[in-house]
Amino acid sequence: MSITRTVSRRIDKAIFGYGLIEPGDRVLIGLSGGKDSVTLAHQLARRAGSFSIPFSAAAVHIRTEYADLAGIDRLRALADEINLPFEQITISVSGRLKPGRRMNCYWCSTQRRTELLRYAQAHGFTRIALGHHMDDILETFLMNMTQQGEISTMLPVLRYDRYPQWIIRPLAWVTEEQTEAYAREIGYEAVRCRCGFDTTSRRKTVRRALDAILEIQGEGARRQMMRALHNVQMSYMPSFRGRG
Amino acid sequence: MSITRTVSRRIDKAIFGYGLIEPGDRVLIGLSGGKDSVTLAHQLARRAGSFSIPFSAAAVHIRTEYADLAGIDRLRALADEINLPFEQITISVSGRLKPGRRMNCYWCSTQRRTELLRYAQAHGFTRIALGHHMDDILETFLMNMTQQGEISTMLPVLRYDRYPQWIIRPLAWVTEEQTEAYAREIGYEAVRCRCGFDTTSRRKTVRRALDAILEIQGEGARRQMMRALHNVQMSYMPSFRGRG
Repeated sequence: MSITRTVSRRIDKAIFGYGLIEPGDRVLIGLSGGKDSVTLAHQLARRAGSFSIPFSAAAVHIRTEYADLAGIDRLRALADEINLPFEQITISVSGRLKPGRRMNCYWCSTQRRTELLRYAQAHGFTRIALGHHMDDILETFLMNMTQQGEISTMLPVLRYDRYPQWIIRPLAWVTEEQTEAYAREIGYEAVRCRCGFDTTSRRKTVRRALDAILEIQGEGARRQMMRALHNVQMSYMPSFRGRG
Repeated sequence: MSITRTVSRRIDKAIFGYGLIEPGDRVLIGLSGGKDSVTLAHQLARRAGSFSIPFSAAAVHIRTEYADLAGIDRLRALADEINLPFEQITISVSGRLKPGRRMNCYWCSTQRRTELLRYAQAHGFTRIALGHHMDDILETFLMNMTQQGEISTMLPVLRYDRYPQWIIRPLAWVTEEQTEAYAREIGYEAVRCRCGFDTTSRRKTVRRALDAILEIQGEGARRQMMRALHNVQMSYMPSFRGRG
């Protein structure tokens, strides 16, 4: 099967399996310009207007002071090519740091997320689509388990209490290897972050742990782990007396 | 803290935390003679009769055709030394194999388990204590997740519908490294299996995966993972529509 078709089927699996999109939805895509969000945008733009569930899509790039300007030009060109409405918003993520704090990926991504939510609210979008994929979900699971002592993960669909906008992750069943292959297939060169900080170490560490599991247990383990997240057998999980 | 005291406290944590033993219980220990079941027997024998919860304990060794006879002599001597009633039952695990099947660890252990249950029923025991430890529980978790697509594990206490005997695992919070140190501390040389089959590969493989996680994520990850098994956040686990 071609990579395009594989990715397309896995996105449909997520859309229908999790009920990510409802008729009339206005979907805002968080388009960083990396291979993941570009795969997502490319696929959703193809569906918008002609999908079995009628919905519209647009993309926003949150530009920071560390922007790769040539990359953003390529991103805009891609959006034009696939008829995806494209907007960019410029913020200073370092300007929002509290005094004495160092910049890090977590802070930068929360700021960009907040900005996306604001934009979606101001412009009447009902869904915010993010480019997280299956490996991100498995990494979050491993991180929460080994560092927080908790069995939980990043959800394919997150409904906020305070906001009408849902966060959706249509790439939940797409692997990182597949978004890489997809970006190559469409000949897209990713936007790079120019920040020069390298502070994603917690996530990089857990990525190594995931790679080690897959190397030892075999590649099929990735899909089994993803299935397992949907298949919690509470009667075969321990609980302390009075807390169960 | 001495290894004896550490292990003792962790066993108490399991006994009280999971409610493993109730007043008047008669506990049958499955004593293979490995470092794990010996640690368990040594600790439960110390408690029997003088614990805050009154209970009695006895041990049974299920001897197979692959027995290490000198080892069993040492085991009996240890039981005498700690005043633990000791019995051995001889079965042929290969004789119970269906035609054409090869011997393997899984088959052998289910046969010995069945025999333990029969003995407990015939002699009025209310609990069967097994020597599985924290690493066994984490390995089972990883095996179920990566090979069966299921989040589940080996329980510290398992209540059967068909039998009044509960299976209890008082070493749930003791690590393998600790049972090794404990057996060394009391100068005990473990019984060896003489079967010559080496068919535990699935478990050995998953053990390597656990070791890799702990090496990458740090030794503290072991305890975090164990805590996580008790801390499932179902609202942060994905579910397909109509199945949640």
